[in-house]
Amino acid sequence: MRVQAVTSEGLPSYRFPVDPWRLVEREMDADTLGVTETLFAIGNGYLGMRANPSEGRDAHSHGTFLNGFHETWPIHHAEEAHAFAKTGQTIVNVPDAKLMKLYVDDEPLLLGEADLESYERVLDFKTGEYSVDLIWRTPAGKRLRVRSTRMTSLEHRHLALLTFEIEMLEGSAPLVLLSQLLNRQDGGDEYHVTEAALGEGLDPRKSRRFDRRVLVPEVAEVRDEDRSGGAAVLGYRTSHSGMTMACAYQHDIDTTAEYSATTSVDADVAKTVFTFDGRVGAPIRINKYVSYHSSKGVPAQELADRCLWTIRRARSNGVDRLRREQQSYLNQFWENADIVVDGNEATQQAIRWHLFHLAQASARTNEVGIPAKATTGGGYDGHYFWDTEIYVIPFLAYTNPSAAQKLLRFRWKMLDSARKRARELSQKGALYPWRTISGEEASAYYAAGTAQYHINAAVAHAFEKYHRATGDDKTLFREGAEILVETARLWQDLGFFALNGERRFRIHGVTGPDEYTTVVNDNLYTNVMAQANMRFAIRTVRKLQEADPGRFQQLVRATDLDLSELDDWQEAADAMYLPFDKEMAIHSQDEGFLDREIWDCKNTPDELYPLLLHFHPLVIYRHQVLKQADVVLAMYLHPEHFEPEQKRRNFDYYDPLTTGDSSLSACIQAIVAAEVGRDAEAFKYFQEALYIDLLNLHGNSADGIHVANNGGIWAALMHGFGGVADDGEAIELTPRLPKDWNGLRLRLVRHGVRAEIEINHTTATVRVLAGGVLPIRAANGEIILVSTDDAYEIELPTRTPAPAADEPTGLSRREPKPVTPPGLPADLFDESTVTS
Amino acid sequence: MRVQAVTSEGLPSYRFPVDPWRLVEREMDADTLGVTETLFAIGNGYLGMRANPSEGRDAHSHGTFLNGFHETWPIHHAEEAHAFAKTGQTIVNVPDAKLMKLYVDDEPLLLGEADLESYERVLDFKTGEYSVDLIWRTPAGKRLRVRSTRMTSLEHRHLALLTFEIEMLEGSAPLVLLSQLLNRQDGGDEYHVTEAALGEGLDPRKSRRFDRRVLVPEVAEVRDEDRSGGAAVLGYRTSHSGMTMACAYQHDIDTTAEYSATTSVDADVAKTVFTFDGRVGAPIRINKYVSYHSSKGVPAQELADRCLWTIRRARSNGVDRLRREQQSYLNQFWENADIVVDGNEATQQAIRWHLFHLAQASARTNEVGIPAKATTGGGYDGHYFWDTEIYVIPFLAYTNPSAAQKLLRFRWKMLDSARKRARELSQKGALYPWRTISGEEASAYYAAGTAQYHINAAVAHAFEKYHRATGDDKTLFREGAEILVETARLWQDLGFFALNGERRFRIHGVTGPDEYTTVVNDNLYTNVMAQANMRFAIRTVRKLQEADPGRFQQLVRATDLDLSELDDWQEAADAMYLPFDKEMAIHSQDEGFLDREIWDCKNTPDELYPLLLHFHPLVIYRHQVLKQADVVLAMYLHPEHFEPEQKRRNFDYYDPLTTGDSSLSACIQAIVAAEVGRDAEAFKYFQEALYIDLLNLHGNSADGIHVANNGGIWAALMHGFGGVADDGEAIELTPRLPKDWNGLRLRLVRHGVRAEIEINHTTATVRVLAGGVLPIRAANGEIILVSTDDAYEIELPTRTPAPAADEPTGLSRREPKPVTPPGLPADLFDESTVTS
Repeated sequence: MRVQAVTSEGLPSYRFPVDPWRLVEREMDADTLGVTETLFAIGNGYLGMRANPSEGRDAHSHGTFLNGFHETWPIHHAEEAHAFAKTGQTIVNVPDAKLMKLYVDDEPLLLGEADLESYERVLDFKTGEYSVDLIWRTPAGKRLRVRSTRMTSLEHRHLALLTFEIEMLEGSAPLVLLSQLLNRQDGGDEYHVTEAALGEGLDPRKSRRFDRRVLVPEVAEVRDEDRSGGAAVLGYRTSHSGMTMACAYQHDIDTTAEYSATTSVDADVAKTVFTFDGRVGAPIRINKYVSYHSSKGVPAQELADRCLWTIRRARSNGVDRLRREQQSYLNQFWENADIVVDGNEATQQAIRWHLFHLAQASARTNEVGIPAKATTGGGYDGHYFWDTEIYVIPFLAYTNPSAAQKLLRFRWKMLDSARKRARELSQKGALYPWRTISGEEASAYYAAGTAQYHINAAVAHAFEKYHRATGDDKTLFREGAEILVETARLWQDLGFFALNGERRFRIHGVTGPDEYTTVVNDNLYTNVMAQANMRFAIRTVRKLQEADPGRFQQLVRATDLDLSELDDWQEAADAMYLPFDKEMAIHSQDEGFLDREIWDCKNTPDELYPLLLHFHPLVIYRHQVLKQADVVLAMYLHPEHFEPEQKRRNFDYYDPLTTGDSSLSACIQAIVAAEVGRDAEAFKYFQEALYIDLLNLHGNSADGIHVANNGGIWAALMHGFGGVADDGEAIELTPRLPKDWNGLRLRLVRHGVRAEIEINHTTATVRVLAGGVLPIRAANGEIILVSTDDAYEIELPTRTPAPAADEPTGLSRREPKPVTPPGLPADLFDESTVTS
Repeated sequence: MRVQAVTSEGLPSYRFPVDPWRLVEREMDADTLGVTETLFAIGNGYLGMRANPSEGRDAHSHGTFLNGFHETWPIHHAEEAHAFAKTGQTIVNVPDAKLMKLYVDDEPLLLGEADLESYERVLDFKTGEYSVDLIWRTPAGKRLRVRSTRMTSLEHRHLALLTFEIEMLEGSAPLVLLSQLLNRQDGGDEYHVTEAALGEGLDPRKSRRFDRRVLVPEVAEVRDEDRSGGAAVLGYRTSHSGMTMACAYQHDIDTTAEYSATTSVDADVAKTVFTFDGRVGAPIRINKYVSYHSSKGVPAQELADRCLWTIRRARSNGVDRLRREQQSYLNQFWENADIVVDGNEATQQAIRWHLFHLAQASARTNEVGIPAKATTGGGYDGHYFWDTEIYVIPFLAYTNPSAAQKLLRFRWKMLDSARKRARELSQKGALYPWRTISGEEASAYYAAGTAQYHINAAVAHAFEKYHRATGDDKTLFREGAEILVETARLWQDLGFFALNGERRFRIHGVTGPDEYTTVVNDNLYTNVMAQANMRFAIRTVRKLQEADPGRFQQLVRATDLDLSELDDWQEAADAMYLPFDKEMAIHSQDEGFLDREIWDCKNTPDELYPLLLHFHPLVIYRHQVLKQADVVLAMYLHPEHFEPEQKRRNFDYYDPLTTGDSSLSACIQAIVAAEVGRDAEAFKYFQEALYIDLLNLHGNSADGIHVANNGGIWAALMHGFGGVADDGEAIELTPRLPKDWNGLRLRLVRHGVRAEIEINHTTATVRVLAGGVLPIRAANGEIILVSTDDAYEIELPTRTPAPAADEPTGLSRREPKPVTPPGLPADLFDESTVTS
C-alpha cells in the first residue's frame, strides 16, 4: 500500500536486523520474493543480477541485464498519427549464470522447503558482495554448511564472480553441483509469458515480454577444457534489433575431496555437472568466473572470445585480488560519498543502501545511460529518462565526477538522434526522446511522453550542475557546447512571442514533470528550465569563443551556428513568461492551472490511488491534482526565481494537491519542505522516500529499484537537511537538521577537493580532507577559503518555526499518511498493489 | 487535391453529361473506379451496394453493407490507461449479390477491355435505380446489347432487385450467365488484405480489415428449386461480435430462347449457371431477387427463412410493382425535399445528387443510426458519429419527420450504454460515445474521440430541432425527456463553478468539433451547446410535468429525478462561461485559444494539407489553426448568442485559420459566410461542399460519401442562401441568393404543412401546398399565417455589401482556392491524396 505506515524503525527487524553497513535477511518470506530480489540485487552499471536463489526456483522474476542490450519491436498505435513513436525498445533478460544447484544424496537444496538450521542473506556495502550462508539438515539427516557469494565487479565491467562453498558438518554423501548458464528469455521456464497476456494489462510501467524468440543462437561451445569442466560460452543475436551478446563461465575447484566435472552446451543452456565425495573435513570451494559482452552488431563469435579473455585474466588474478579491488573501489566511494546520520541506525542503514545502489548503478556505465531501474529489474523496459540528469548526475558530480562525465557524453553521443527527432516534430535544434535506449523516442503515449520537452533542459541542467561541481571546461566545451546550442535552438523555435498584451515568450503544448496534467501552455517548470538552458548556452558559447577560438570554430561548423542566434535566445530567455497569480500570490503550474477544478483528495478513498490506474486521463487532467512535484521541483532547481515567502506559499498550495503517485515526488517535496520550514512534512517525505523500495511503498519494487529516488535521497540529505548549495563560485550552508537526529555528516568532492560537513543542532563544521581549498560563502556574502589545515565552523541560528499555512479556499487536503507504531503489519510488502 | 479547382461547370461533362435528374457516366475511367463506385452507390438506409461492375472485376473495393452489421475486435493501445475504449467495431462487407457475369462464346464481358459501341451508366434520382446500358462487339464479331439494373428497395428494407437483359443484335452464340453470391470478406479475392498491412497505415479514417475469418458459415443451401435454378441461401455468424446474417437470391427468366439453370452452394459462394442459345429476336431477361437479413443473434437459419419469405413476396408482386413503389417513394421525397436552382443545371444536378443520397441513407434505417459514409463504403468502419444529429436530422425533420423520429429513437435505445460510459468516465448522467455501432465507445484516440463530449449536446439539439419542425410532443416526452435529463446531468456534473473571479460555470478538458486543438478548457461551442442542452431539458421536464403527470412520474422513476436538479441545471446554464476577448472583440474558440501561436497557413505548401497527415498532433494543437468550423458552427446553431457585428468579426477571424481539412467544415462556413454578408466566400464554400465527393476534393470519396456534407448542402441552401429560420413559433425568411443564380425554390414540411419557398433577387414567395397553415414572422415581428389559398410574398431589400474584413494582426490568411477555367485537369479524381 502506498499510504503505508513509515516508522522510524524502518524495516521489520525480526527479518532484517539493523546493520549500518549491510542489508541482512534472516528469514525468508515467499510472498516478498520480488521485492527482495530487487533490494539485494547486484550490478556494476553494465551487468546486473537480481537476487534470485542459486537453485533457480521460487522467483518472482529471474533477471540478468546488460545495460543497453535491448530488443526492438514495432509500436502499433490503436490510432496512428504523424511522427508517433515507431520503435519499441525493451531490455533483454540475458542468459542466467547465477544457477548453481546443489544435490546431496541426489536431493536438491530448495531454500523454500529445506530444513535450515541457520540462514543469512547479506548485501554488503563495503565488500560489494552478495552472500547467502546457511546450514542445511538434509532429508537423509546429513548436515552441511553452504556459503555462496556473488559479485559484479565494480572494476571489471564484464566480469562477475560467484563462489560456492560446501562443508559437510555431519555425515558423508555424494554431492552434485549443477552449474548453468540458461537462456530464460527464450528457452527458460518462468519468464515465458505471452505478449498478448501482457498487452491486456493496464499498467504501463511494467516491462514488455515477447511471444517470439528474441535471442537467436550463434555460439554454443565448450572451450579451454580442463579438469574443472572447461569454459562454456553462448552467443546470440537479437532477432529484431540485431544486437549481439556472448556470455561464458569457467570454474576453479579447491578441495581435497574427489571430484569429476562434465560440461555440455546447446543453444539455450550450458551446464557443468560436478560430482564430489562429500565428507566432513574436506570442504569444497567452487569459484565461477562469469563474463558478459554485448555490442550493437559485432559478431557474437568475437564477443565469445572477449568473454574468454575476461575470464582468463580474472582467473589468473584470482578471487582475492578481485575482492580487494572491489573493496578498494567501495572504500573510495564511501570516502567521497558517505553520509552519516547520528541518532537512528535503521535510517543509517537505509541511507547507505540507497548510496550503495547508486555506486552500483554508476560504476561502469561507460557512456550509456542509467535505466530507471538501473539493472535491477525489467521495469520501464530498461529505458533512460530524465531521471539520470535531474536525480543522479548531481550526486555523481559531487562524489564521482568521472562517472558523471560519462553520462554526459552518453547524451552527446545521442545528439544526432535528437536532431532527427526535432525535425520529425517540426522543430529546429535537437529534441531528446522522453524514453529510449537506442536514442529513438520509445514513448507510445505522447501526452505523458514526447510532450515532456523539458527533458531537453534536464540535459542542459546536468551539464551546468556538473560544471559547477567540477569546473571541467573541457567537457563543457567539447560535449556541452554542442548540446547547449541545439537545445537552446529547440526552445527558441518551440516558443513564440504572444501577440496579446505584454511581449512575453511562451511555450505551449508541452507536459511538465507532473503527468497528471498534460499538453499544457506555459508550464512553469518547463519555462524556468528552458530559460536557464538558453542562458547557459549563451554563457558557454561566449566563454568558449574567448577561451578556445579553435574549438569555437569547430562548434560553429558542427552546429552551423550564427552568433545572432545568441541574441534570439537572450531575447526569448529575458521575455520568458512565468505564470504567477497575483491575487493568490502563488505561481501557477501552468497557464490556467489555477482555474481548474480542485480534486477532492480528502474524499478519494485510498484504494483509488494511484489515480492513473483508476480514472480516465481526461478526468485527471481537468483537475488540480499532481502526480509529482512540479512547481516545487522548479523551486528546488532554480531557487533564484522565488522569494522565500513565495516559496512557502507555493509549497503550501501544491503540497496537499500532490498525490505522490510518482516515486520522483517525495524526495523533492522533502527538500523544499525543509527549505521553507515545513519541518514535519520534510521529515515525513524523507521517510517516505527512504522506504519507497525498502518497504515497497509503491507496490512495484519487485520490478526494480527507483534509481531517481536513490539520487533523491542523497539530494534530500545534502541540499534539504544539509542545506548545501553551490552557485559555482562557492558553497553556501543553511543546515536544517531534523529534530529527531543528533547530527549529520556529509562528504563531497568539489573541483577535486574532498570535504566533509558535519552538522548538529548548533553548529556546522566544514573540513577539507584532501585536494586543496574549498570556498564557502559566509552569511555576510564573503567567501572563505577552507584548506586542509583548518576546520571552518558556523554557529547555526535557532530555527524559528514557519508560520502556519493558510488553508487555501476549496483545497481539500489529503490526510497525512498515518504513522503506525512499531511492530509492522504482515502485508508490509504487499505486491498486489502497484504505483510508479 | 483538396485545393482543387471548383468551377461552376462541376463535373467533366465529356464523361458526366449534365442532367438535372440523373447522374450519368458516358466514359469509363479505370483510375477513378473507387470514386464512381461511391457516387453511383445505391442503398436504402439498411442495405447498401457500391457501384461495382456485375462482372466482379476491376474494382477499387467491392462493397455490400448492412447498416449496423459489424464485427468486433479488442483495441490494443500502445500504452493502456483506465477506461480507454476496449472494443473495436467494424462494419462487415457482406456477401456480394451484384455478381452476374456474362460469357458469349465462352468469352467474358469485361468492361475494362470490351469493345463497347456504346456505354451509359446512370443513377436515376426519380426511379431510384442504377443501370448500365451498353452495346458490345465481341471478339468473335457478334454484337449484343446488355442492360442491367439494380435497385435497393426504398419500401422493402431487406430487398434488392437486379435485372439483366441480353439482346443479340448480330449473330448467334451460346450465352452463359453466372449469377453469384460471394462472401468476399473471407472467401473473396481483392478484399483480403492483412490486418498488419493496414495497421502500418497512417490514415485513421480508413476501415479496418481482418486477417482472420469474420463470417463463420452456418447456412449454405439451395431451396425452392425450380426451372430458373431455385433459391440459394447463405447464412453466417460473425466470429467475435456473434451477430448473424443471411442472404439469398432467386431468379425469374423471361425469354423465348432455350435455356437451362444449375445452382450450387458452398460455405462462401452460391452460384447459378444459366446457359442460353442466344439469337437475334430472342431477348433474354433475368430478374434476380436478392434479400439480406441480419440480427444481433437470431440463428442464421431463421434469417435464411426470412430471406426466402422476402423473396417469395417480391417475386409474387413482380418487378413492375417494385419499380412503381420505388418511384412512388421518391415522388413523395421530391415533393417534400426538392430544391431547384434557376441558373445552373450542373449545380442543379449536383444538388439533387446530394438529396438523393440523403433519401437513400435515411429511407429504412429503422432505429439504427446513419454511418458517416451511409452504406456506400467501409470508411470510418461504418460508425455513427454526431453527423446524424447535427447534419442529417435537421434535413429529415423538415422533409421526412418519421425518418428523423426513428433516428432519435436510435439514440434513446443507446441510453443505457451511454449511462454506463458516463460511469466509466467518473460522471453522472449519460455520455454518448464519440463513435460507435453497438453503443460502446469505439474511439481509440481519446483526444479526438472520447473528449468530444459535445456529442451529448448534439443529441439533445436534434430533439429540439425535430420538435421545432414537427411539434411532436409524444417523441419529446417519451424518448426526449429521458435523454435530456441524463445529458443535462452530465454537463452539470462535468463542469464546475470556478473559484477565481466572477462566478462562472466552466467545462474543462474537452475537445470541440475542431480536432486541431484537443482537450481544451471552455470550448465555446461545447459551452453554448451544453447550456442549450440544460435549458431544453428544464423546459421539457416542466412541460411534461404539466402536460402529462403520469408520464412525468414514469420519467422520475426511470431517471431517479429530483426536481431540485432543474435548479442546478438552471444555475449552471445561466452562469455558463462563453469566452470572449474584449480587446479583439471576438469570441475565443476556447479559453486561451487566442493566446496560441498562429499557424502560418500562407506559407504551408499545399502538399502538407491535410495537416493531420503531416504534423505531429502536438505541433498542430499548439497553434491557432482549425480543421473545421467551431465558433462558426456555434454561431450557426445558436445565433441568438451573437450580435450581427460579432458574427462577422468572428467569421472574419476564424475563416483564414480554417483549413477545411474536415469535410464537415465547408457547408457550415458557407452558411455563416452568407449570413454575415461574405457572399463570395459563401459561394466558394458552397461550391467546395457541393463537389467534395463529386470531384473527390478530399481525395477519399472512394471510401464512401460524406453523408454529413450531403445534409450540409441542404442546410446551406435552406438556411444559408434561403435564409430560412425557425424558432418553433414561426418561420423567418432572410434570403441571400447568390448573384450567379436567378432563383431558388425550396420545399419543406413543418408541423405537417408542406410548403414551397421561391426566391429570386427581389422577392421571396411562400406557398402552402398542403396540410394547413404556415406561420411566417414578418419583418415587423408579426406572425402571418399562410394557408393553401394565398401566396405570401416578401419584397427583398437590396443587399448591401458587408464592410471589408480587418486583417487581424499576425494572421496569415491561406490563399483562396484557385478557380481554374473550364476544361478540367486529368487528375481531377486523384485518389492518391486523401483528407477527411
